[in-house]
Amino acid sequence: MDAHEVIARCRRLAECTEEPGHITRTFLSPPMREVHALAGAWMRSAGLQVRVDAAGNLRGACGEGSRLMIGSHLDTVPHAGAFDGILGVMMGIALAGRRPLEVAGFSEEEGVRFGTPFIGSRALVGDPVTGSEVLGAIREFGLDPDCLPDALLSPDVRGYLEFHIEQGPVLESLDLPLAVVEAVAGQSRFEVCFTGKANHAGTTPMHLRRDALAGAAEWIGLVEREGATVGWVEAEPGATNVIAGSVRASLDVRHARDGERRRIADCLLQGARELAHRRGLTVEWEQKLDQPAVDLRCDQLERAVEAAGYPVHRMVSGAGHDAMILARKVPSALLFLRSPGGISHHPDEAVLPADVEAALAVGAKYLEAWRPE
Amino acid sequence: MDAHEVIARCRRLAECTEEPGHITRTFLSPPMREVHALAGAWMRSAGLQVRVDAAGNLRGACGEGSRLMIGSHLDTVPHAGAFDGILGVMMGIALAGRRPLEVAGFSEEEGVRFGTPFIGSRALVGDPVTGSEVLGAIREFGLDPDCLPDALLSPDVRGYLEFHIEQGPVLESLDLPLAVVEAVAGQSRFEVCFTGKANHAGTTPMHLRRDALAGAAEWIGLVEREGATVGWVEAEPGATNVIAGSVRASLDVRHARDGERRRIADCLLQGARELAHRRGLTVEWEQKLDQPAVDLRCDQLERAVEAAGYPVHRMVSGAGHDAMILARKVPSALLFLRSPGGISHHPDEAVLPADVEAALAVGAKYLEAWRPE
Repeated sequence: MDAHEVIARCRRLAECTEEPGHITRTFLSPPMREVHALAGAWMRSAGLQVRVDAAGNLRGACGEGSRLMIGSHLDTVPHAGAFDGILGVMMGIALAGRRPLEVAGFSEEEGVRFGTPFIGSRALVGDPVTGSEVLGAIREFGLDPDCLPDALLSPDVRGYLEFHIEQGPVLESLDLPLAVVEAVAGQSRFEVCFTGKANHAGTTPMHLRRDALAGAAEWIGLVEREGATVGWVEAEPGATNVIAGSVRASLDVRHARDGERRRIADCLLQGARELAHRRGLTVEWEQKLDQPAVDLRCDQLERAVEAAGYPVHRMVSGAGHDAMILARKVPSALLFLRSPGGISHHPDEAVLPADVEAALAVGAKYLEAWRPE
Repeated sequence: MDAHEVIARCRRLAECTEEPGHITRTFLSPPMREVHALAGAWMRSAGLQVRVDAAGNLRGACGEGSRLMIGSHLDTVPHAGAFDGILGVMMGIALAGRRPLEVAGFSEEEGVRFGTPFIGSRALVGDPVTGSEVLGAIREFGLDPDCLPDALLSPDVRGYLEFHIEQGPVLESLDLPLAVVEAVAGQSRFEVCFTGKANHAGTTPMHLRRDALAGAAEWIGLVEREGATVGWVEAEPGATNVIAGSVRASLDVRHARDGERRRIADCLLQGARELAHRRGLTVEWEQKLDQPAVDLRCDQLERAVEAAGYPVHRMVSGAGHDAMILARKVPSALLFLRSPGGISHHPDEAVLPADVEAALAVGAKYLEAWRPE
């Protein structure tokens, strides 16, 4: 199966959607049934034995004994593109038939339907599937939550490989087709609140102001200089002629090294404290997420990239992927494919046929050389 | 009538409200009828002949020939304090009986009910009262819009004096009871929109970002350094893990000199253009208000402050007041009374009895010396 066929299959599955005219396919939504039917048939044609486990993951296996799993997710964000997740599953099917192998299409990675991401892959590593809504959706789809232990990764699966679009602009800016992902960055998220005093913009001289928005703006500059992100900000009371009395803002810090990530977060919160003090403001924060970085395996994948004749480039993924869940149980590797325009989670999301061809060649070399550790 | 009685009357009128437990009294709302009844009775006791004109202004006059008008407004913002506006009307009543005089309690200054401010005082200077809602409210209150010409300022009124709380912290910070207002600052208001590119905060390296919020934050720092105000800001799409693709923000610039105000606004918009260019953003703006400054008369009022034995201090008002409307027709003066804590438009709004006493003494000296120009 060639790159054009892989891309055509991704485009075909994009028609399985909850919203005509858009690509929207959440955890165990009705169009997921169509995906299981189509992708399941392609799996069978590739010589795989197909089942849907109790977490709604589509699983196709062939061969006996130690084997590799190739997978990614089948769900999408609302108004998605055609390649995020799906591409990795189609790559697995395209590479099937050479060695004992399991291909997995995970039911849930994006966290859209119930606000909980990675429902699919977490069922394989033994995280309990909880929440009455999630369990209800499983039953409604015709699956039995009592059978969830059957979703667990077989002890025969001794490694995991994922192909995924980069969803960022790095490879394109470097003019490279592929990257070996060495780690998924850890994340710290905070909600930060600066409090000053709301006052009339016309009657309060600058030296008597305690302007929460001016303080927050200075801090956003600091956040930018440290390579972190403020994505939203809300000023109260929020009127043109009223000095902001309080401002809430988000903080998102990512780094491949947890120590460095925590140092940056501490530095930014300390910076907030200092500038708030200088400006007569107070500042408080609440940590919303403290997710450690996950190291992935690079050596075998780099050798495969080299053997296939492509330039080797390592990078860190700032976004989470199923590989970081599987890495808890088996050596896991992740190969990024260039995202044209850096565009993802958008209908314009794309992948270049030549890059898919490169990834298929790398996958073939990887499978050829793969031995369980 | 002494300062305590003036304050007690303000507190009594605060009970006339649309919302029990709060002070909320908009243009020709039902409690305005009570205000007319109570304040009208106090006017009559002070020897004034009372009428309600067709714009809903409470007018009390005495004496023949050239006379001064003392006035302010009877309406409030939602959840107001007891002194903004009302104090000036009670001061007028307290000072009545000495000379030919008209006391005016304007029906509307805050612009709350219909989004249009100064409906009351603008009827006196001949601005057409328009808008079907406003005219409907006038009729509903039992007044006749056809009689609006009777609301016009009499040619005998040759000057205007207003007492108003400062609504800011300046006098308190200087430990002064009163200020003579030399001008009402002009205002420029803009809505400014920075546009970059929304992107994944985890997958987009800093050098490839076009972060509209980081740009807006840099600009807010510039605005602060020029002594202007950004009171609200909105980032889109507004998620913790998404780089902001666009940010809208307000800009409020005030100055007593119109040329300087326009220079500052131009400088800030030019600054926005420069930083947007440097950051790969675009910026657009829309001017929402361009209101010229209004000069007020100071000399007679300063002499009265001096004659009453209080320190003379001039200041600019950053907020609009009825005096700036009346100034179009007659020489107009405005005396500020210190606002404890700088608090206004809030239930904690207050005035010190000693400051009211000072203002009464200044008013008496002013009336004593007043001659039409």
